[in-house]
Amino acid sequence: MTFATLADFAATLTDLPPPDAASTAAATDRDAQLTKPPGALGRLEELAIWYAGWRGDARPRLDRPQVVIFAGNHGVVAQGISAFPAAVTAQMVANFHAGGAAINQLARQFGADLSVVALDLDRPTQDFTQGPAMTDADCAAALSAGWQAVDPLADLLVVGEMGIGNTTTAAALACALRGGDPADWVGRGTGLDDAGVARKAQVVAAGLARNPVAGDPLQALRCLGGRELAAMTGAIARARASRIPVLLDGFICTAAAAVLETARPGALDHCVAGHVSQEPGHARLLAALGQTPLLSLDLRLGEGSGAALAIGILQGAIACHSGMATFAEAGVSGA
Amino acid sequence: MTFATLADFAATLTDLPPPDAASTAAATDRDAQLTKPPGALGRLEELAIWYAGWRGDARPRLDRPQVVIFAGNHGVVAQGISAFPAAVTAQMVANFHAGGAAINQLARQFGADLSVVALDLDRPTQDFTQGPAMTDADCAAALSAGWQAVDPLADLLVVGEMGIGNTTTAAALACALRGGDPADWVGRGTGLDDAGVARKAQVVAAGLARNPVAGDPLQALRCLGGRELAAMTGAIARARASRIPVLLDGFICTAAAAVLETARPGALDHCVAGHVSQEPGHARLLAALGQTPLLSLDLRLGEGSGAALAIGILQGAIACHSGMATFAEAGVSGA
Repeated sequence: MTFATLADFAATLTDLPPPDAASTAAATDRDAQLTKPPGALGRLEELAIWYAGWRGDARPRLDRPQVVIFAGNHGVVAQGISAFPAAVTAQMVANFHAGGAAINQLARQFGADLSVVALDLDRPTQDFTQGPAMTDADCAAALSAGWQAVDPLADLLVVGEMGIGNTTTAAALACALRGGDPADWVGRGTGLDDAGVARKAQVVAAGLARNPVAGDPLQALRCLGGRELAAMTGAIARARASRIPVLLDGFICTAAAAVLETARPGALDHCVAGHVSQEPGHARLLAALGQTPLLSLDLRLGEGSGAALAIGILQGAIACHSGMATFAEAGVSGA
Repeated sequence: MTFATLADFAATLTDLPPPDAASTAAATDRDAQLTKPPGALGRLEELAIWYAGWRGDARPRLDRPQVVIFAGNHGVVAQGISAFPAAVTAQMVANFHAGGAAINQLARQFGADLSVVALDLDRPTQDFTQGPAMTDADCAAALSAGWQAVDPLADLLVVGEMGIGNTTTAAALACALRGGDPADWVGRGTGLDDAGVARKAQVVAAGLARNPVAGDPLQALRCLGGRELAAMTGAIARARASRIPVLLDGFICTAAAAVLETARPGALDHCVAGHVSQEPGHARLLAALGQTPLLSLDLRLGEGSGAALAIGILQGAIACHSGMATFAEAGVSGA
């Protein structure tokens, strides 16, 4: 499916499929019979039941995880809000293709298929302090690219990003979606000092003043987001339409996801936060979305790296749920 | 090596090998050149450098993780401190051998070799409220069993346990080693109610009163521990002697490890806490040992399950460290 306009995309959000209630119930019943004290596997049990519901299988497998990295460039880098030059976006895309980035190693370690989608890197979005970052058609094209990048046969999706300047973009988007002060949402990104962070908050404030989008999450995405953020929004929506569970990555991924939850509460029920990053806006945004991250290891790389690491946790949860013996099968006495 | 007496074992702690300083330095240097902002992989970077030092290889691999589960029975179950009957220890050992337990699934998921060592299950330790849990020779034999269970060619060790009643044992041992009130160290174990937890604290207090071991960690292990705890102590010591890094599991494993750290500060430098369990004494004991857990997912199963899950985190860390391109190799601009 492709979208010519934001209104076309918005139409996909009106009828979101729920998890399969019978599979959730059957997985809950199975969990209670496994050879462990009730609840002793903690969040692994919740995760396995959640996954079973979305996959429509009380004893599911996780065989085809997919990681997609979207890359975009941002006009707002003209405001001096990144420690790295914008050329690094394309250089890192080449590094992804050559297999040299962190996400290449993590995708291989956890058996995930990895694809990379570079979005008009030679055509940065407009500096949002000067006007809307994207036209309606540009934003719809990025949403389409994300939607189409998802493999409908995948059984887990991780979306990641690369885009010099995009913690500023994500901060502006999060602030537009969830309110608060720009200073609440900005952080060091790839390595700003205190003066750089203060400058970044001013740039976010200027972007919000220039683009009055309050109350309209898709307009916030268009005016303050970037192509890679819109693509992540589109991919997460596509995963929901196909009942593919999603592990959310860091601040930028979560800001893109928050567009959906703000437009349609419950739209992220198929998502679990893979980790919480060091970027301070991330913990704030996860809390606003009611998400408790699986990992907290001070990562702040992006590229889907934190969520990719969490694939291992989900694999462990599903291996236990689907592979363990029941008390009856093992002849173990109950409490 | 086998130990006829506790004094024989104590002699192994007098000359503990350090990590290889040159490998630590070279790994630190490599980390700084990888295609990511400095520190952006957070704890994964620390983990990889720690592992490199212990393995004596600046660009290490993790190919042969070993999980060993030790099982033992405890006379103190006569005091009614467990929600499950003592027969479950042997039943779960059979479940491990049949492949039906959580640890079987997790070991397979993360490519670890799994072995199970049952220690005189038909001969429980003495109820420590009535006298020392073990004789010197019995405790030395359990330390020996742990020492010998470690594969010297393993490149990572996880030790886990099964033993109905052993959260009571661990609480008594932790209290003897680190002080505080018995109530600080007891929890619900496999599922006690509030009255059961209060009873457990009284039993721990009675054990401490009956066995005056303050200031002697190996005597604390002998008088208040169990065979599976002593075996874990022995295995962790053997790993240190062979420079094999260890991921610590839950409360019982950490109590066994704490014997070494109390006897010889720094003896756990080759160990990282894989997770923090729901058993409240675990977080307290990790803090006393200066350990920050990798995972916090409300597990409280034992069997090495939390540490086995953390193998995936360490694998991800090493995959990134050893597999990523440098800025120079990838032609990526620096900050």
